Amino acid sequence: MRALRYEGPGRPVWTVTSDPAPLVPTDAVVAVDAVTLCGTDLHILRGDVPEVVAGTILGHEAVGTVEAVGSAVASVRPGDRVLVSCISACGRCRSCLSGRQGLCTGGGGWVLGHRINGTQAEYVRTPFADTSLHLLPEKLSDEDALVLCDILPTAYEVGVLNGQVRPGDVVVVVGAGPVGIAAVRAAAMFTPRAMVVVDPAPGRRQMALAAGAQVALDGVDDPGAAVSELTGGRGADVVIEAVGVPEAFELCVRLVRPGGHVANVGVHGAPAALHLEAIWDRDLTVTTGLVDTRTTPELITMVAEGLLPVDGMITHSFDLNDIESAYDVFTRAGETGALKVALHRKHA
Amino acid sequence: MRALRYEGPGRPVWTVTSDPAPLVPTDAVVAVDAVTLCGTDLHILRGDVPEVVAGTILGHEAVGTVEAVGSAVASVRPGDRVLVSCISACGRCRSCLSGRQGLCTGGGGWVLGHRINGTQAEYVRTPFADTSLHLLPEKLSDEDALVLCDILPTAYEVGVLNGQVRPGDVVVVVGAGPVGIAAVRAAAMFTPRAMVVVDPAPGRRQMALAAGAQVALDGVDDPGAAVSELTGGRGADVVIEAVGVPEAFELCVRLVRPGGHVANVGVHGAPAALHLEAIWDRDLTVTTGLVDTRTTPELITMVAEGLLPVDGMITHSFDLNDIESAYDVFTRAGETGALKVALHRKHA
Repeated sequence: MRALRYEGPGRPVWTVTSDPAPLVPTDAVVAVDAVTLCGTDLHILRGDVPEVVAGTILGHEAVGTVEAVGSAVASVRPGDRVLVSCISACGRCRSCLSGRQGLCTGGGGWVLGHRINGTQAEYVRTPFADTSLHLLPEKLSDEDALVLCDILPTAYEVGVLNGQVRPGDVVVVVGAGPVGIAAVRAAAMFTPRAMVVVDPAPGRRQMALAAGAQVALDGVDDPGAAVSELTGGRGADVVIEAVGVPEAFELCVRLVRPGGHVANVGVHGAPAALHLEAIWDRDLTVTTGLVDTRTTPELITMVAEGLLPVDGMITHSFDLNDIESAYDVFTRAGETGALKVALHRKHA
Repeated sequence: MRALRYEGPGRPVWTVTSDPAPLVPTDAVVAVDAVTLCGTDLHILRGDVPEVVAGTILGHEAVGTVEAVGSAVASVRPGDRVLVSCISACGRCRSCLSGRQGLCTGGGGWVLGHRINGTQAEYVRTPFADTSLHLLPEKLSDEDALVLCDILPTAYEVGVLNGQVRPGDVVVVVGAGPVGIAAVRAAAMFTPRAMVVVDPAPGRRQMALAAGAQVALDGVDDPGAAVSELTGGRGADVVIEAVGVPEAFELCVRLVRPGGHVANVGVHGAPAALHLEAIWDRDLTVTTGLVDTRTTPELITMVAEGLLPVDGMITHSFDLNDIESAYDVFTRAGETGALKVALHRKHA
């Protein structure tokens, strides 16, 4: 088969390699029909994720067709159309049992395209198939399903649910990348009073407004003034960090009201200052988290039934064989306006 | 009457001043029977709380007898024995309605001995008497009741409840001052598997062990090793910060397990580093808060019925006229071993 291999920091290589097969009875092999790229893949290619060894096939999001299953797999059969979750879940460890599959200590967690070969290939071996693949309803398109592999559950679980968004809230989302836009879509289901997005890129602010935000700020002028005006000086009820830099996190803590929630979704590489001298008595809740994908089944239903629209999130589509061009477009998102990029495999 | 007045940074003055009277219909005046000193009073005396103006009578904790009530007060009558809560609650603002009386925007919050005259006096005017005074059962001694004015609800609400302590948890309390010890007592009601206290003072470590902690560490050796051993390498389920310095907060974040809670109770004067690069994917919840005293009625019952023992928390008792000596003993807690200091008024 063909697959995209990480060969160490630098460009990835679209190459020929051997087909995967189930290694243990709980494995499945999925023929990839569509796959997408994630900002995390770019981090890996920059050498920021050192545990990824050279030779690893990248990718942790895909839609495909079950090709083969191990003897213990009970919930999917060859020919089934499935979503490959970015999180593999053993289903048995203490973390999985408490709905924290992202922290799985039984061999799962984020492993695809990280600790083991991933989805940017014609076939992928998926561990713990019964608890890590999700059957897809026919009416859900491959492109809509791709958004459900990682970014929508991430935005929903780590942003909106951790942030405890409630009807009537003023919600601020700092960062209008794929996860930030997904957070706006997901938060809208809770009927907030207003959603404010902060992002320096004009194109992304436009997408945020199209996704349901009422106010889009560039962050150059202090967003605090706009949020204060919207909230009668109280501050935002929930602020979601979807960037991953200290300045963005610190802005979130400044914008939240007493008693409010800051939900960090961004992947960080450096510490932030937590101004305890200003917030020790403000009843704040700050959360961090890796997605669990525990809500993927309900999100699939919500998207399929139109409760949670995801139009406009896939901005570019390519043939899987053109994945190197797709990486180029995705890497230069600032110029190309790419949000999520879909790659489709043409079946013979 | 006699009262302890803040005259600007330095020593407080026990002096004669005019008796208070109800100013508005919702006020009461309470004759103080017993009162205690708080670390916050020491902060004020060092000039760290600049909004406290010279001439203010200090103190926000007391037990007393209602002397007079305004025309709107319905729940207490002259002669009733009451606890004066450190938080005054208007009972009507959005914060009070949602159980966040500490954030009261209707004129309450922490006002006694802060924005208005406090309890370190023979009489104190208490605003919003119906929602800020609590009738005391006869069997509760004045000294036990004093612990319920501030430190026990603070430890319970901001530490134990915010931290979501559950049966079987390993709980770490960093700082074994009055609030840290109270947190150990309160957490014990949830039947944790183990409680670990970190404090450099040997006397306070002893008190923590007497209060129910199983392990008391001095913090010189890395507490991480002991916590790791106790938890099979996972980390503590809940870590409560009861010191108020950046190093203590940062230690808390290092000690907590993935998916765990850090509840900050300490009063901070400086920012801490939040190592997002280490915790962004660890599903942590960090909370801050000022006490609301919304649980004071239930805590009164729990202490009165022996579910929540508070013996040993008052280490020194004085006559109210000797309050200057009491301040001296409390200020030199490192030498004197003072935890909480009670002052009793001898009735004529």
